[in-house]
Amino acid sequence: MDSAETVTSREWLLRSRPTGRPVDSDVELTRRVVPAPSAGEVLVANAVMSVEPYMRGRMGGEATYAEPYPVDQPMRAPAVGRVTASNDDSVPVGSLVLHDFGWREHAVVPAAQCRILAHDDLAPAVHLGVLGIPGMTAWIGIDRIAQVVPGDVVFVSSAAGAVGSTAVQLAKLRGARVIASAGSPEKVTLARDLGADAAFDYHDGPVSRLLRGALAELDEPGIDVYFDNVGGDHLEAAVRMINDRARIALCGMISIYNSSTPQPGPSNLIKLIWRRARMEGFLLRDHQGAREAFEADMADWIRSGRVRPVHTEFAGGVEGAWDAFLGMLDGRATGKAVVPIGGDSGTRGGTFLPDKEVRR
Amino acid sequence: MDSAETVTSREWLLRSRPTGRPVDSDVELTRRVVPAPSAGEVLVANAVMSVEPYMRGRMGGEATYAEPYPVDQPMRAPAVGRVTASNDDSVPVGSLVLHDFGWREHAVVPAAQCRILAHDDLAPAVHLGVLGIPGMTAWIGIDRIAQVVPGDVVFVSSAAGAVGSTAVQLAKLRGARVIASAGSPEKVTLARDLGADAAFDYHDGPVSRLLRGALAELDEPGIDVYFDNVGGDHLEAAVRMINDRARIALCGMISIYNSSTPQPGPSNLIKLIWRRARMEGFLLRDHQGAREAFEADMADWIRSGRVRPVHTEFAGGVEGAWDAFLGMLDGRATGKAVVPIGGDSGTRGGTFLPDKEVRR
Repeated sequence: MDSAETVTSREWLLRSRPTGRPVDSDVELTRRVVPAPSAGEVLVANAVMSVEPYMRGRMGGEATYAEPYPVDQPMRAPAVGRVTASNDDSVPVGSLVLHDFGWREHAVVPAAQCRILAHDDLAPAVHLGVLGIPGMTAWIGIDRIAQVVPGDVVFVSSAAGAVGSTAVQLAKLRGARVIASAGSPEKVTLARDLGADAAFDYHDGPVSRLLRGALAELDEPGIDVYFDNVGGDHLEAAVRMINDRARIALCGMISIYNSSTPQPGPSNLIKLIWRRARMEGFLLRDHQGAREAFEADMADWIRSGRVRPVHTEFAGGVEGAWDAFLGMLDGRATGKAVVPIGGDSGTRGGTFLPDKEVRR
Repeated sequence: MDSAETVTSREWLLRSRPTGRPVDSDVELTRRVVPAPSAGEVLVANAVMSVEPYMRGRMGGEATYAEPYPVDQPMRAPAVGRVTASNDDSVPVGSLVLHDFGWREHAVVPAAQCRILAHDDLAPAVHLGVLGIPGMTAWIGIDRIAQVVPGDVVFVSSAAGAVGSTAVQLAKLRGARVIASAGSPEKVTLARDLGADAAFDYHDGPVSRLLRGALAELDEPGIDVYFDNVGGDHLEAAVRMINDRARIALCGMISIYNSSTPQPGPSNLIKLIWRRARMEGFLLRDHQGAREAFEADMADWIRSGRVRPVHTEFAGGVEGAWDAFLGMLDGRATGKAVVPIGGDSGTRGGTFLPDKEVRR
């Protein structure tokens, strides 16, 4: 034990399982005295936590790939913080760590469930975004699945999202020309700021027409790579415009997540034969062996300004985390949605957040 | 010139472009004296020719990937024959050659458009089927696209077709367990004869139910590979049952070829993400560099009986070629549809044709 002073922490408990849109009475912010870490545990002062759509599923109990949150217990979320007390030699005091005990100011975490973050010169929030799960997801999709090479025309949907905003930048870094689709004029502007050579708001017409227009703008006949975060119309439009040997990296299908009935798939998959194209789904979990290599590259790119983290930081500290979660569900976030909840928060990294917005 | 005797040949001319189902008056069997081959040409006595669905398109003039047949000229078709006179040193008399001048008994062919067949101990018909385009298509799909390995569960649709019947056998050769779908009880029996561990007639119910039943028969949870010749319901059912890391080789989509309106694609492509699966289209033309290796392997497999050619040989010689073409269009062929039109015909290979049938 390096420290034994009494610590109190505010934390969000799940009080009832929401049906439909979550309401304030589903949760409660409580305060308690945090026990000293037992053997094999550390105490972490959380700096920033993530709010993500899958948490809605864990609240409702219907999630299939993550455990439901128990009722009357603090909820979970990815968070980054500094170790303030340690009862395990492998995670000393002062370490910047990533863990899954967010929704609270201070957390007692098993050392085995902490990951010490190597690049702790970067703002904590960065480790939840471009240097974390969404960033590495983009990297796997661009480098390993789509295998982007210089000269490729790469189409990215949901291009202002946490994954998409990184995919746009990585594709540019690999020498590609990039077409971005996003859901608002502001997000389109962001995509262009990040380097997209053409970008459109998918509300402005059928995706196939908008994509064709973007290709005309680039004077290109078709796309070599589609980084798909959306499925649906975007996927069908992309397949329509593929070049020979195109690669479609399937990362997510937002368009069907909220649909209760199966949506028809692209009617033009025969083009995959004519164009000898490949469509491949992937999950980050299969690529953990590459994480160190990814982090080393990405940290360098961030430091040199070649990749810019895109975050939306919701304000209000731990108290504001619930409203931040609802705001994220309402689509009010651009890039990675995070909530700074401690002094050592993501706000320190403000200079390299091109779209840093503080809500409320 | 090695020979100068006068040769007459019967040949089928296109007289009018069919609309809908071709009728007898669209073509005419004529006889003419075949000129001696000029410099750079050879004379070939055709032994066997291929009848294939795409020829209907070339007759009608609507084909996009092959030139329409000119009216009042002999039609074209892949054919195998022996060179009986040569005016080009590169293709000597006696060579067994593959060329595109079928629909006739004797053809004058530019030497540059002849391919000398290395494995001329095998019946000519074999070079149009399992050792030719359909066989190599199956080989590319199984070995290069799907990368079948021992223990894989491989699903093959149109399994009694020219490509599918080879794919079933190659998958078995690679140590896979094979589930076959075909369109009649006889074709199902054939698929089992070729080694399929389970097989069903897709008319017997929804493909997804039949596939699930076949998997139950094999006591397997899902498929590792789908060799798709069909698209449509078969593709959706296959996607539903994929294992992690599944590979779907898209070879053809019979289900949509005759459809004038786009058919919806699989509604469950998100499973490609959950299962980290790959779907890839391919065309044989991209793999010509592998042809010698393929032919060497396949010729050995045929000689040793490990792969059995499956042909339907239509009778009647060159005179019967038109009815053979119509019969093929009506689905009366199993495996590769060929028409022996000379003395040195595919019938010599009868012993290794498990489903050799002579029609009419």
